[in-house]
Amino acid sequence: MSTAPDLIDRLRLIRTPGIGPMAYRQLIARFGSAGAALEAIPDLARRGGGQPPVIHPRRLAEEEIASVDRLGARFLVAGEGLYPRLLAALEHAPPLLIAKGRLELFERPQVAIVGARNASAAACRFARGLARELGGEGVVIVSGLARGIDAAAHDGAMDSGTIGCAAGGIDVFYPPENEERQKRMWTDGLVLSERPPGLEPRSRDFPRRNRIIAGLAAGTVVVEAAPRSGSLITARLAAEAGREVMAVPGSPLDPRAQGCNQLIRDGATLVQNAADVLEMIRPLVGRVESIRDPFEGAPLIEATGDARERIEALLGPSAVPVDEIVRLAEAEPGEVQLVLLELDLAGRIDRHAGGKVSLRAA
Amino acid sequence: MSTAPDLIDRLRLIRTPGIGPMAYRQLIARFGSAGAALEAIPDLARRGGGQPPVIHPRRLAEEEIASVDRLGARFLVAGEGLYPRLLAALEHAPPLLIAKGRLELFERPQVAIVGARNASAAACRFARGLARELGGEGVVIVSGLARGIDAAAHDGAMDSGTIGCAAGGIDVFYPPENEERQKRMWTDGLVLSERPPGLEPRSRDFPRRNRIIAGLAAGTVVVEAAPRSGSLITARLAAEAGREVMAVPGSPLDPRAQGCNQLIRDGATLVQNAADVLEMIRPLVGRVESIRDPFEGAPLIEATGDARERIEALLGPSAVPVDEIVRLAEAEPGEVQLVLLELDLAGRIDRHAGGKVSLRAA
Repeated sequence: MSTAPDLIDRLRLIRTPGIGPMAYRQLIARFGSAGAALEAIPDLARRGGGQPPVIHPRRLAEEEIASVDRLGARFLVAGEGLYPRLLAALEHAPPLLIAKGRLELFERPQVAIVGARNASAAACRFARGLARELGGEGVVIVSGLARGIDAAAHDGAMDSGTIGCAAGGIDVFYPPENEERQKRMWTDGLVLSERPPGLEPRSRDFPRRNRIIAGLAAGTVVVEAAPRSGSLITARLAAEAGREVMAVPGSPLDPRAQGCNQLIRDGATLVQNAADVLEMIRPLVGRVESIRDPFEGAPLIEATGDARERIEALLGPSAVPVDEIVRLAEAEPGEVQLVLLELDLAGRIDRHAGGKVSLRAA
Repeated sequence: MSTAPDLIDRLRLIRTPGIGPMAYRQLIARFGSAGAALEAIPDLARRGGGQPPVIHPRRLAEEEIASVDRLGARFLVAGEGLYPRLLAALEHAPPLLIAKGRLELFERPQVAIVGARNASAAACRFARGLARELGGEGVVIVSGLARGIDAAAHDGAMDSGTIGCAAGGIDVFYPPENEERQKRMWTDGLVLSERPPGLEPRSRDFPRRNRIIAGLAAGTVVVEAAPRSGSLITARLAAEAGREVMAVPGSPLDPRAQGCNQLIRDGATLVQNAADVLEMIRPLVGRVESIRDPFEGAPLIEATGDARERIEALLGPSAVPVDEIVRLAEAEPGEVQLVLLELDLAGRIDRHAGGKVSLRAA
């Protein structure tokens, strides 16, 4: 079922430690293919002043592809084929997604419904009803397969169409009581992950997963969320991606309403029902941005030792925009990108949202 | 205690049937004093094509002044002395207010807290706490002496300072259980009304009273309100006067939260506590607009019969802006104002917010 001819190379590249979606995308743009990028990595990392990363072994990539096949799932490659275009527009879009279920759900407008795992029964009932109503209007409901609001949203849209974004492998049931729900979504809905099958989610996988939820959906509705919760991260990521952020209000006397009320104060749209949500997302449906790729077609400039020094000196533990480094280093943008790519592969910098980079603590 | 030298004439003028705050203000501006206006009315009304209104008798005005004195209350004249300046900035500000209590409360920033008469116990507790907290920050709480949220707001601010705007006379207890609260506010707070002592409120007095609440306050907070309720009228009047409109959200599952949630959707600021309210009103405190008086100093143009006909022809049952009539009639603004004043005194037109007029149904 996996059709991309260089899927093995792409998988080896993204599964190589320290190569995130940004470095992946730059490498492909610079070297033309995942295979050429894999060959270039050792030299780039050495120039960045670090040990080259251990390239993900071919055997493990082949085993992963086989296990995806056995699950009846398939890979989707960013920017190609059925890979959802709204998600591809995200700066940190996962280069590869593993998907099992009804891929045709991508063709309908998607709205995310997320919220607290320990939500009140009333809020879960509300989320289920909202998902059902939106489903009746042709909207596909995206959520994170968690307890509470997520589960209620999936259940409400089970008959009309729902997409679950797993933080671990698509065949890992987390929490365990999700097993029946998730298995049903393998056939009646769709389950997605960027992580390999069989992988238990680690804590850092949850915020990463949240960007997929926010990126798929034209808008995200938050139902009951505590301050500083994962749902608010999803809302922030949705806002950063230029999507609608909507929140269901609650009484100030209810601690579980604090997060949503604060979101509304910060500019999210207050929604009370499916009609309110539809009003917000209608203008966005069908408006798909092209994939932003600032590196595509960049000339293959080689960095001079002098420029490399200037650029390294500008980096510190605080994240700074790449644009600012280009300006302060008085260097060519392509030169700066190359040096940053080398430092990235050498494991010496971290990349942040909004095109920012920082020096990694030694 | 009543000191304005022409108070009797002013009282006779505003108590004359058919003379609202707009006509009152125009007459004073045109004729220089209430006494001169009273003399001019019969002639103006005849030119407007109607019977002159029966001027409010001097004896009744004297009796009202005496009863206000007996109550230990006093008159405040718009634009003069202690009359609150934010209220005076309102287009339809009451020309005369009767006040009993601590007039020094006008010197501190005022916030209105209004809401449903049949509010939940939780919402009443919330309103009481909000009023107490704002009171602790030096804010005076304005409300409408009604059951539910209003009563709770007054109670919460009883020790720090609260102003009650009565729909009937300041000595009428409506609802009757307000007697103790209102009497306490006569000494510890302040009770205001534009209606004569002893007058039971009629249904049309409530929305009029609401404009005083909205006009006094730098901002209005709505706590639990049904759609199409009086509290939403107060919120609309506050918005029209350029004041902050704030609303306390609630669950979409709670019908009593519908009005507030809709207000927030329409642009009101979601507030959850005193800090949220203070953040909104701080920039407004001390910023007092001057009284808008488009007629002041207008030359004493006399309208020609021709212009009168053109202007009358432009009026209909739908409210239209006076500016538009000026433009369409190709007449001097002063000429149009005069004709409208005559029609007003003849009881043939109604005045609306935003400087609009309509022909009264015959």
